[in-house]
Amino acid sequence: MIESEAAGAEELIRAAVAEGARVCFANPGTTEMPLVAALDSVPGIRAVLGLQENVCTGAADGYARIAGHAALTLLHLGPGLANGLANLHNARRAHTPVVNVVGDHASWHLPYDAPLTSDIAALAGTVGTVHPVAGRAGIAAATHAAFADAHTRPGVATIVVPADFQQQVAAKSHTERRGGSPVPRTVSLPGTAERSATSLAPDTDLAAIAAALRHAGAGAVLLLGGNGLSRDGQAAAARIAEATGARLYSETFPARAERGGGLPGLARLPYFPEQAMSALTNATVVILAGAAEPAAYFGYQGIPSLLAPPGTVRRLAGPGEDAAHALEAVSELVTRSATATAARHHPASAAASARAEVPPQGTALSGAIVGAVLAAALPEHAIVSVEGGTCGYPFYDAAAGGPPHTVLTNTGGAIGQGLPCALGAAVAAPSRPVIALQSDGSGLYTPQALWTMAREHCDVVVLIAANHAYGVLRTELARHGHERPGSQASGLTSLDDPRVDWVALAGGFGISAARAATAGELRQSVKHAIAEGGPHLIEMTL
Amino acid sequence: MIESEAAGAEELIRAAVAEGARVCFANPGTTEMPLVAALDSVPGIRAVLGLQENVCTGAADGYARIAGHAALTLLHLGPGLANGLANLHNARRAHTPVVNVVGDHASWHLPYDAPLTSDIAALAGTVGTVHPVAGRAGIAAATHAAFADAHTRPGVATIVVPADFQQQVAAKSHTERRGGSPVPRTVSLPGTAERSATSLAPDTDLAAIAAALRHAGAGAVLLLGGNGLSRDGQAAAARIAEATGARLYSETFPARAERGGGLPGLARLPYFPEQAMSALTNATVVILAGAAEPAAYFGYQGIPSLLAPPGTVRRLAGPGEDAAHALEAVSELVTRSATATAARHHPASAAASARAEVPPQGTALSGAIVGAVLAAALPEHAIVSVEGGTCGYPFYDAAAGGPPHTVLTNTGGAIGQGLPCALGAAVAAPSRPVIALQSDGSGLYTPQALWTMAREHCDVVVLIAANHAYGVLRTELARHGHERPGSQASGLTSLDDPRVDWVALAGGFGISAARAATAGELRQSVKHAIAEGGPHLIEMTL
Repeated sequence: MIESEAAGAEELIRAAVAEGARVCFANPGTTEMPLVAALDSVPGIRAVLGLQENVCTGAADGYARIAGHAALTLLHLGPGLANGLANLHNARRAHTPVVNVVGDHASWHLPYDAPLTSDIAALAGTVGTVHPVAGRAGIAAATHAAFADAHTRPGVATIVVPADFQQQVAAKSHTERRGGSPVPRTVSLPGTAERSATSLAPDTDLAAIAAALRHAGAGAVLLLGGNGLSRDGQAAAARIAEATGARLYSETFPARAERGGGLPGLARLPYFPEQAMSALTNATVVILAGAAEPAAYFGYQGIPSLLAPPGTVRRLAGPGEDAAHALEAVSELVTRSATATAARHHPASAAASARAEVPPQGTALSGAIVGAVLAAALPEHAIVSVEGGTCGYPFYDAAAGGPPHTVLTNTGGAIGQGLPCALGAAVAAPSRPVIALQSDGSGLYTPQALWTMAREHCDVVVLIAANHAYGVLRTELARHGHERPGSQASGLTSLDDPRVDWVALAGGFGISAARAATAGELRQSVKHAIAEGGPHLIEMTL
Repeated sequence: MIESEAAGAEELIRAAVAEGARVCFANPGTTEMPLVAALDSVPGIRAVLGLQENVCTGAADGYARIAGHAALTLLHLGPGLANGLANLHNARRAHTPVVNVVGDHASWHLPYDAPLTSDIAALAGTVGTVHPVAGRAGIAAATHAAFADAHTRPGVATIVVPADFQQQVAAKSHTERRGGSPVPRTVSLPGTAERSATSLAPDTDLAAIAAALRHAGAGAVLLLGGNGLSRDGQAAAARIAEATGARLYSETFPARAERGGGLPGLARLPYFPEQAMSALTNATVVILAGAAEPAAYFGYQGIPSLLAPPGTVRRLAGPGEDAAHALEAVSELVTRSATATAARHHPASAAASARAEVPPQGTALSGAIVGAVLAAALPEHAIVSVEGGTCGYPFYDAAAGGPPHTVLTNTGGAIGQGLPCALGAAVAAPSRPVIALQSDGSGLYTPQALWTMAREHCDVVVLIAANHAYGVLRTELARHGHERPGSQASGLTSLDDPRVDWVALAGGFGISAARAATAGELRQSVKHAIAEGGPHLIEMTL
């Protein structure tokens, strides 16, 4: 039994391979050196280096959303984990399975409070479950438990493994006595999968939901989230709408939404609470299919936190649960005896049934024009990572009638997610073109992702919406009664002095880049980038 | 009493002004909009925007190290704080007073677990004390308490203030009933100060330490840290060494060390434990003067964690305590009756007593050459933020005999500290030239600091030591027995593919930049940059 003589680090990597890990987004340090060496001595996992940890964790999130199984990260002690927490927060909100491996000081060195010592478990606990390794013999078990947590909750799980346990070679008796099995389970090499979710809650009453839908007719709203936004989930939801007259909405920030290729082109529940409440105002029942109960993104004085009319919310599938399966089952129930006379009038995007219109060449770029140009140029089976509303909302609607594609959004609001997420998606699906539709302000939290895109030769086209401002904060200042912000408030929401030159930044990180100011220039640049392959960046002058 | 009618946000800013805050390193979001507005309505604090929170927190650390009083940050909810934790970890290890203000959701909105909700207190608790604001009436008290914590521990304190309390206007009776005083205390406008520290522990026995020094003679080691490395502290230590024969060392990573201008040019206790143990091997007593007990940075098998010979360590002043004062007092005691025949042989740098030698123009750059060139070109009263050993160690020694200057180092090991720290130092001391001597790998964690340097027109010369590798990890791999790393280990320690073009990056962030490959080119570029003023970056080909 060769495994029993392996160093702890090798046992951890072997267990991760057995759990299906194939890629590790890594930014290791001294306390992870045995794990780094084990990535060479144990085959099966490819290391992808990030220059900053939030690139690694955001990439892991994007990877797992596309691959449908857990992504692995390797981070350095508390500060390294801390640097990656923001995108782990987003992964937590996306219910994405992510397993972090964080090295710690040698267990016997911890009491001396060396400079890099900190409370790693407290940090990790804010985004998911924590699996501290208390001895060499516990490494495989902790690894398997972390993957189990990541897949079944689903969400983020962190293994904290002191450096000495990584180095120690297990005594054979140890492994045998504890019954741990470091032998890889039989796993197929993972491809990409649409439907990763846990079973429905045991108390889910499909028949009652079906009855409620039939009873409410056009008064019902089905709010889709999670894998309810898979191709199958949306198709089932469309059948339900057809049979009952229910209206369909997508949650506001889906982790992964399939779009185009004949799908209904669901609108998302609006971001601002007044508009969301208005969308739900006539609902007599709001059925959650993979989405959380709609709540305002932020609290505003005089506006309620919960957006659906009181007493209307019913749960078919919670976030992370198998909403697609639930929708299919309910669709069976409502169509079996349906007279199917109800009109189909879910609030789809205007352009849902037609290919997006192409704006004239010389049109200056705006959010709407960018959305239209990109929708018209979108290749089949593209993955679009959207961060920022300026272009994101128009694109979402404009592309609904286009070819089949997948949209990934920022689920947790920790900005700096779009570029790493695009990177991870590209690593997970090397045969699919990836677009990062990215606002400039949020892109500047993690521009280092560009370097890894270059290093990995990812087919990513990064589109930067350069309006040189934190646009949403200008809106929020006005909502707070500061329509004419003072000089400091203006300064804190402006990126105008100096203007960041994204073409230069991209060049600095090894990516060829261009600038586009009109619809024609953008179309040309996007087509060129997709045709040429590899990473490209286009700074769009808005 | 106008103050009692202020919104909570205004009361917080007013309290911070009263506590001496003059600059706020900010990256706010929606839940901080009332505070952003209050920065305009309440005069006294200048907002400095960072594109990423670790820039803000690192700048706050650098600012407070130079200013000698607490720096303020403004961060957005849990993810914003998380992004800044790594440099707060460094500030904690530096015992730098930093006060973070973090907005939270409106208190009545928190139960709905909106996307950006997270455990802010758990995050903040890993780096210092937490001051949650539980109601409008508690804002001023929480602010004063946070500043008090930051100054007396000294270290990091975080105020968490829900958005509704920021907005609420206080009823007059509230303020009066609670006796809170939002009226600014009389404070002088802060300049920069060398000696910020707390009182000595009550059990400090100066006479016993003096006796031990006299008894041990050349067997004594004085390990200086904190404000023991101020000009006064070092001068006192030098008098002690003169009188008793004690050897002097600096802690390995000082938060702020005064250097040059006739100071003794103390060597730092070596980084690797074997060398540090060797330096201390003959010590019969090791006296801590503002430094922590010497412990290995990382644990290595077969090497003890504690580096001083067992039983030799005595504390004169702990980290954060007023070591300078303690050294002065002890110096009085030992010199009063001293025969002063002991040789002065503390292990000063070789070049401590002479101006650094100038390498020939055409010499290719190496760490040693960079150190020598910079030492020779160093303007008086420069502040040098050092991150990375390649050039940092040689420079430290080479400049010891030069003009008076201040060195700031990375105290906590969370890399990405050097550029933000230089930014903060430049904001604190606009009349002093600032040099950032920066390794490329660690610089790539927070390159966004360059943008704020450009925006604030800081007199910072950024010197990037571009060896395109995580050099220290190569060394650590070898120490772990992997002298010939495999392809993945090689990849994870290499930044060579693609090479980051720092000149392009700097241009992207609005900073003019140049490249230097020889001693002559570097000297020329540094002189030009200092003469021209404003921020410059020089990529040094190593």
